[in-house]
Amino acid sequence: MATLIAPCNHSPQEDAEALQKAFKGWGTDENAIIVILGHRNIYQRQQIRTAYEEIFQEDLVKKLESELKGDFEKAVYRWILEPADRDAVLANVALKSGRNYYAIVEISSVLSPEELLAVRRAYLDRYKRSLEEDIASHTSGHLRQLLVGLVTSYRYTGDEINAKLAQSEAEILHEAIKEKKGSQEEAVRILSTRSKTQLIATFNYYREIHGTSITKKLLDEASDDFQKALYTAIRCTTNHTKYYEKVLRDAIKGVGTDEDALTRVIVSRAEIDLKIISEVYYKRNSVPLEHAVAKETSGDYKNFLLTLLGKDD
Amino acid sequence: MATLIAPCNHSPQEDAEALQKAFKGWGTDENAIIVILGHRNIYQRQQIRTAYEEIFQEDLVKKLESELKGDFEKAVYRWILEPADRDAVLANVALKSGRNYYAIVEISSVLSPEELLAVRRAYLDRYKRSLEEDIASHTSGHLRQLLVGLVTSYRYTGDEINAKLAQSEAEILHEAIKEKKGSQEEAVRILSTRSKTQLIATFNYYREIHGTSITKKLLDEASDDFQKALYTAIRCTTNHTKYYEKVLRDAIKGVGTDEDALTRVIVSRAEIDLKIISEVYYKRNSVPLEHAVAKETSGDYKNFLLTLLGKDD
Repeated sequence: MATLIAPCNHSPQEDAEALQKAFKGWGTDENAIIVILGHRNIYQRQQIRTAYEEIFQEDLVKKLESELKGDFEKAVYRWILEPADRDAVLANVALKSGRNYYAIVEISSVLSPEELLAVRRAYLDRYKRSLEEDIASHTSGHLRQLLVGLVTSYRYTGDEINAKLAQSEAEILHEAIKEKKGSQEEAVRILSTRSKTQLIATFNYYREIHGTSITKKLLDEASDDFQKALYTAIRCTTNHTKYYEKVLRDAIKGVGTDEDALTRVIVSRAEIDLKIISEVYYKRNSVPLEHAVAKETSGDYKNFLLTLLGKDD
Repeated sequence: MATLIAPCNHSPQEDAEALQKAFKGWGTDENAIIVILGHRNIYQRQQIRTAYEEIFQEDLVKKLESELKGDFEKAVYRWILEPADRDAVLANVALKSGRNYYAIVEISSVLSPEELLAVRRAYLDRYKRSLEEDIASHTSGHLRQLLVGLVTSYRYTGDEINAKLAQSEAEILHEAIKEKKGSQEEAVRILSTRSKTQLIATFNYYREIHGTSITKKLLDEASDDFQKALYTAIRCTTNHTKYYEKVLRDAIKGVGTDEDALTRVIVSRAEIDLKIISEVYYKRNSVPLEHAVAKETSGDYKNFLLTLLGKDD
C-alpha cells in the first residue's frame, strides 16, 4: 500500500509548463514543485520529463538540480528518477560514502530478481562500470564476498523448500555468527544463492533450535561490517517493512536527523508499501510517522516528505 | 560465420509431419531426422516443435529422446533446445560430472551479458534452483568464488579502458599465478567484474611486461582446478574461436574421442561462428575439421555432426 496520492487526470504538458513557471522569475516556487511532483506516480513523472524536454528542449532533472538545493534537492532528484536508476544512484552514493552499505544490501535483498537486474543495467548505463565491479573495488574479504554475492544473485522465486537443507544451513549460519573458521564463506553462499522462501525456512529452523531469532543473535554478537551486512540482509529478507520501520526510527531518534536514510526510505517506498511501514511505525512508537518526520525536518524538505507520506494539502 | 545450411522456405507443418513419419513403423528413419533438423535454424526448429505439438499433441523433444540413443540422441537433444536452455543443460551436466567445469566457464566468458542472463533464467525454470546456487553447492574455495563470480557477472560492454588499472591488475594476476597469498581472491574479482575490453588490455600489458602471454604462463604453472578455470576464462575472453579450436583438437586427438566436448562445440557454434573455428582448425592442423570429425565418429552421430558442419548432402 502506497502513501502517494496521485490524480488520474493529469496533463503532462500542463505540468511541464507549470514547473517551468515555478522556475521562472526572482526565486523558485518550491511549493508549486511539491504540489505537482509530490502528487504524480512514476509513469506520470516520466511523462512530465518527456513533455518538459519536448516543450523547453531542456532536461527537467538537470533543471531541478540547478534550481533546488540541500536535502530538498536530493529528495526531489531521487524522486524523479526511474526506480532502477534511483537505486543505482543510491548504491553509488553508498559506495562513495565508504562505510554505509545498507542501501546496497536493501536493494539486493528487497527487490525481485528482475528488479535487481534492472538496477544493475541502470548502474552500467550511468557509470560505465558494473555495480559488482565497483563494490569489489571498494571492499574486501568476506564483506566483499557477501555484497557482490547479494547484488549478483538471481534467485529462484518459487515455493519449493528443502527442509533438510534448511536444518543443516541453519547450523552453518550459527557457526558463522560465532566466526568459526570457514563458516563465513558458507554463510555468504547461503545468503546469496538460496531463495527467499528457503532462507525464511532456515531462519525459522534456527529460532526453533536456538530459542532465539538469528537476527537477535547477530545483533548481540555482530562485531564487524560483514556481520552487520549479514544482519541487514537477513532482516530485509524476513520482513522488510519491519526493517524499514527501524531505519526510519533510527534516522529520526536522538540528536540530529539522518536525512539521507529518511529520504531513501520515503522516496523508495512511497509508491509501494510506505503505508504499511507507517502503520508498523505507529504500532511500535505510538506516534504517527508524519508527526515524527514533521518534528525532525523543516521547510520545503519537510513539506515534500509529508506530501509523499500522503498528507492532504 | 555459421556452418549451418538452412533453407528459407520451409513449412513447419510439413517438417513436423515428416518427422512423425520418420518415427513410425519398424525402426526410426534417422537419416530423415538429420536431413530435416540438421538444416533448420533456431527459429525454424522452434516452429517445428510448436507445429509438432499442435498436430500430434506430443512434445517433439521427448519423442526424439525416446526414439534416438547414444551420442546421436544427445547431439539432437542439445540441438533442438533453445540456446539458453541448451546452455543451462550443459552447465548442469558439467556440475553433475563433478570435475569438468569448462562448459560453465565457456558460457560465462563467451556469451554477452544478456545471453548469460538468459541462461540463468532458463536454468531456474528448468531446475527450480539458481545456477550459482548449484555451482556454490558443488564447489568450494577459490574455484567456487571464480565460477560463481563468472556466471553472475553482468559486465560493462563499452569501449572505455582504464590503462593504469590494466597495469596494476596485470601484476595482481601475475601474483595470483604464483599463488601469492590473497592474490587469488583479487584475480577472481578482476576476471569476474572487469569488461572484456578492459581484461584484454590487462592481458596485453601482461605480455608486454613479462615477455610471455598470461595463458602460456598459466599453462606452465596451472596446478589445480582453480588455475585451470582461470586459464579457460582468460582464453575464452581473449579469443574464443582459438579456444574452441583447441577444445575440438583435444576432443579428436589421441586414443578415444571426447564426444561430449565435440558435440558441445559443434552444436553450440554451428549457427554462430563454427566456420571461423573450422578455418582456425585447418590452419593449425592442416586437416579439414570435417575430415577429422568423420575419421573419429561413425553412423548417425557422424552424419549429424557433418551436416551441422555444412557438408552438402
